Amino acid sequence: MEAGPGVERRLDRACVRVYFWRLLLRQILLKGRKKKRRMSGFTKRLEQASETAKSLVCVGLDPDPARMPVSSVFEFNRAIVDATAGLVCAYKPNLAFYEALGLPGLQDLEKTIAHIRRVAPGVIIIGDAKRGDIGPSAQAYAKALFDVWGFDAVTINAWGGRDSVAPFLEDESKGVFVWCRGSNPGSADFQDAQIVNEEGNMPLYRSMAMACQEWDTKGNMGLVVGATVPEQLREIRAVCPHMPLLIPGVGAQGGDLESAVRLGVDGRGRAALINSSRGIIYASNGTDFAQAAAREADNLRESINQVLEADGKGWP
Amino acid sequence: MEAGPGVERRLDRACVRVYFWRLLLRQILLKGRKKKRRMSGFTKRLEQASETAKSLVCVGLDPDPARMPVSSVFEFNRAIVDATAGLVCAYKPNLAFYEALGLPGLQDLEKTIAHIRRVAPGVIIIGDAKRGDIGPSAQAYAKALFDVWGFDAVTINAWGGRDSVAPFLEDESKGVFVWCRGSNPGSADFQDAQIVNEEGNMPLYRSMAMACQEWDTKGNMGLVVGATVPEQLREIRAVCPHMPLLIPGVGAQGGDLESAVRLGVDGRGRAALINSSRGIIYASNGTDFAQAAAREADNLRESINQVLEADGKGWP
Repeated sequence: MEAGPGVERRLDRACVRVYFWRLLLRQILLKGRKKKRRMSGFTKRLEQASETAKSLVCVGLDPDPARMPVSSVFEFNRAIVDATAGLVCAYKPNLAFYEALGLPGLQDLEKTIAHIRRVAPGVIIIGDAKRGDIGPSAQAYAKALFDVWGFDAVTINAWGGRDSVAPFLEDESKGVFVWCRGSNPGSADFQDAQIVNEEGNMPLYRSMAMACQEWDTKGNMGLVVGATVPEQLREIRAVCPHMPLLIPGVGAQGGDLESAVRLGVDGRGRAALINSSRGIIYASNGTDFAQAAAREADNLRESINQVLEADGKGWP
Repeated sequence: MEAGPGVERRLDRACVRVYFWRLLLRQILLKGRKKKRRMSGFTKRLEQASETAKSLVCVGLDPDPARMPVSSVFEFNRAIVDATAGLVCAYKPNLAFYEALGLPGLQDLEKTIAHIRRVAPGVIIIGDAKRGDIGPSAQAYAKALFDVWGFDAVTINAWGGRDSVAPFLEDESKGVFVWCRGSNPGSADFQDAQIVNEEGNMPLYRSMAMACQEWDTKGNMGLVVGATVPEQLREIRAVCPHMPLLIPGVGAQGGDLESAVRLGVDGRGRAALINSSRGIIYASNGTDFAQAAAREADNLRESINQVLEADGKGWP
């Protein structure tokens, strides 16, 4: 039996219908995936914090009694926070500095977190802890950092592999920044090692970034990448186009700000946190330390925003 | 001029003299190096602790309120320590479990350390912290762990390379165990990566062991290697013939004890710490938990000592 023009027309219509439904389904699936990857509770909050302050600045709160112009860690942090709260998207206390002061140091950290919540409730607080351990210990660290300290995000160390990272990822409202490529010279020792795998040779930091991209099923992962290594930053951003990157090393460590911003942000000029610690909090060792910190934080914010503007990615 | 028999004899004697002095010098140099590598204040104390208890057992103090038969972490630890003090060379509190309980948990850790010092002053206390960070932060962690907490040794994470490890090594009376090859499945993800370097391909854990061997100028470094991976343990012991190895994974994690002992000890049957945490401290969940812990610790000690005896490396 030969097919007449009516049959052909019906076939054509069926094809169009199939094509239409295929497109629609693909859109839905893609949207779902995109949403999952970029709009976790954490990345949403981070984006809001950045947009509110029109800022990608993260201030590292690393109190060092030898450099602080006041004796109380909490008073020091409070003054810095009060002076800079409108200029930043995040604060990042590094736990090492508080632990070095014993239990009183940790009490000061507790009070600092509570103070940030009071004066800047929308700002993200990142616990720079670089914790990493196997199963039950990693679970305990996740509990300590998210439930006890109440951090919005943490930095972790992925040396122990997938099952050492997993306990930190469970709550999609909490961010998890894996220390991928450091800003210090020693980071080259292991992180830059050339490894052999199915896809050919590549540096280990790249392989770690690829693993994190795969493990990030809830969209709440990020990576720590130093501003001092622009080539590595470019490469890691290409592997993880949407992940928030926490970028230390522009202040005291001398990383180039312009390239850090340009290579660190995502396609929309967002999803990067440019961190400065010593460059901001020790801008002055006089009684004007808080105002000096605010001036430095504002300068950093402006310099970043100029790069974003120049690339047509400024704030609305 | 032809050399007569007298000249030949004199040459022979000169050769013998040169050979003798060369041998003597070599002995002196080797002895010096050996001394430097093996007899730091820390390794000396570790060896004394092992010899006193005739034990390579390290008990992990990882309190988990969900599994403890008493409510106070300190009371739990105190009972375990009192029952096992004569059977072990070291205790290893993992900081994660104390941090998960907030500041009260850390106060219990403080009291636990003080209690161990009172009842077992010769026993080594290892702070299982797996800390690692760059320069000033690593310095702060070293200060926290050694000066504030007063640990005799710590576990650290060397992901940040040489300058992230250096601050921990300064005091040769303190031990520093680098997390080299974990006992968990995820440790294969990065630690087993095949890397390319001047000496050909090798797994990353081996390259890390080689780096530590080079960095260990004060003889106070050790490595953490899981009992669950005997082949890696053998390889790492060959790279670092004298370093103390801290070996977790024989209890709840199912690593084979006999191979862990045989492959983990140095040539004299020493310089290894066989760790069990859950297998000892949760041996019973009744009121007899401390006696049960002592029984398990004693069993572990005896089983280890049988392997040492069989290899002619028992205690004097």
